[in-house]
Amino acid sequence: MSFGNHEIMSNPRADRVRDIARLSNARERSKRGEFLAEGPQAVREALRRHHELEAAGKTGVVHTVYATSVGIERLEELADPNNIDLVRQVTPEVLAAMADTVTPQGMVAVCRMDVSSLEDMVARAPRLVAVLCRVQDPGNAGTIVRAADAAGADAMVITAGSVDIFNPKAVRSTAGSLFHMPVVTGASTEDVVAALKAAGVQILAADGYGSFDLDELQEESVRRRTLASGAAPSIDAVETQDGSGSQGDSETQGSVVVLEDPTAWLFGNEAQGLNDEELALADARVAVPLYGIAESLNVGTAATVCLYASARAQRRSNR
Amino acid sequence: MSFGNHEIMSNPRADRVRDIARLSNARERSKRGEFLAEGPQAVREALRRHHELEAAGKTGVVHTVYATSVGIERLEELADPNNIDLVRQVTPEVLAAMADTVTPQGMVAVCRMDVSSLEDMVARAPRLVAVLCRVQDPGNAGTIVRAADAAGADAMVITAGSVDIFNPKAVRSTAGSLFHMPVVTGASTEDVVAALKAAGVQILAADGYGSFDLDELQEESVRRRTLASGAAPSIDAVETQDGSGSQGDSETQGSVVVLEDPTAWLFGNEAQGLNDEELALADARVAVPLYGIAESLNVGTAATVCLYASARAQRRSNR
Repeated sequence: MSFGNHEIMSNPRADRVRDIARLSNARERSKRGEFLAEGPQAVREALRRHHELEAAGKTGVVHTVYATSVGIERLEELADPNNIDLVRQVTPEVLAAMADTVTPQGMVAVCRMDVSSLEDMVARAPRLVAVLCRVQDPGNAGTIVRAADAAGADAMVITAGSVDIFNPKAVRSTAGSLFHMPVVTGASTEDVVAALKAAGVQILAADGYGSFDLDELQEESVRRRTLASGAAPSIDAVETQDGSGSQGDSETQGSVVVLEDPTAWLFGNEAQGLNDEELALADARVAVPLYGIAESLNVGTAATVCLYASARAQRRSNR
Repeated sequence: MSFGNHEIMSNPRADRVRDIARLSNARERSKRGEFLAEGPQAVREALRRHHELEAAGKTGVVHTVYATSVGIERLEELADPNNIDLVRQVTPEVLAAMADTVTPQGMVAVCRMDVSSLEDMVARAPRLVAVLCRVQDPGNAGTIVRAADAAGADAMVITAGSVDIFNPKAVRSTAGSLFHMPVVTGASTEDVVAALKAAGVQILAADGYGSFDLDELQEESVRRRTLASGAAPSIDAVETQDGSGSQGDSETQGSVVVLEDPTAWLFGNEAQGLNDEELALADARVAVPLYGIAESLNVGTAATVCLYASARAQRRSNR
């Protein structure tokens, strides 16, 4: 692979190197609208998204990839000739001076923050959205982005007052998923909920004290589909005949939460959960049941369980 | 609250303080069979377990709680007079010198490692067990312990070659759950699986390449119970009649994995997952489906989804 007339960057104190290192600072990222993706997984997903956007006639997300000779060998395995003009070779010392990670494994990419507007997100008629309300820990935020991607969520919202999702640790925790779906940042929870409700998306608050039990909702969802698809005449008729100890029927009566419906989940701050204002915005409060002695779940854990419950129900329904 | 004739410990360089600080070292913990629980939540759960054991005529887990005057006020809210003789007051400087955490919030407890033997665990006829195979990150290990507790698991196993679960960061991530169930450490995965199989516990490997889809297994489980409890004559009869597009029927035919059955889940190393030897020990390999673009799940996330799937099925069945 050749890199035209570029020389190998070897001075860790060069202005450009310092400029990139400054992307570890939130204000600097915000001012420049740039952030750093570190390591092969993040860089690969950034490049994939970059070419996808360019193929659609849009602006890509990668400004420049800085890679050591070892990193360039790994990049060559990606076997995309389009990458060549984006790559600058650097010495290991220069890479270390640029990166936040102790071992960026041979490469970093300076990327453009490709954030969506609330309007664009809603216009795409999303069926599953994760909304982070004042989540503070970058690792938690990144883990939720990754879990939301795995569950096939259509969009992520990081509300104002949450951690910066372009923080190096958060980006790392997303394991590339930050480049897999539209991300809305900086909007208030109130505005986000209003826009989603207007688009017919139900708002569920993940809340340890919620009156709906997530596992009951899941059981209901499968029962509904099992009975609708098969032998039984109708749900009501069967529920009437069902007197044999299946749990929670009293709760399911009159339930207004249907997991199959388009849903946005609100996830709250690590220490306090969702506050009263945030809870009041939701159509329903749903608790992940605690079967042991634990008093609560880590927000990333709770979010995973909630998002997978919705995905499971939605992907198996005909709605 | 009075502490008898004890003086307030005020010398951060005292031998006892250095001894406690050395518990941040794995070898030291192992040699002494002690570890440090830091912060109010961990200390409270340690004390609760301590009194539970003593009430049963057994040896408690707390040697000594070291607390600042502020910490002692928080401890008094626990309102357990039994705590008094376990508490030594220290200055904030002494506490800082003892603790691994930057802000241990006024208290730490020196605890005895209360590990179970494999034989004891199996003798209790566990229905849900989480087995960590070479998990390396203390935060991941702790998060899984917390999730296993939330899902009502009966025991945790941390196999040889995994991170030390008594590492300060791991203990912190458990949020007190380390004191909520029996923990087996240091056994080989082979021995653990042999003992569990002999006790009639099925072994499921959480494996991204697994041939069973966890969501299909969950659907099957609810369908089985819905149909068994209600109108329909039998599962087989209804599955035959069901031709209306419910997914995965071909996979469910002849399935040998029943989520309601007593289950131990194997969770693998962060980077490599379960290796071939570990996979070969399992009765079945089960994948958490990936609905989006993400290539994999964080091990803590995957473990949560698997453990909750089992808990949901087991707690609603009559087996």
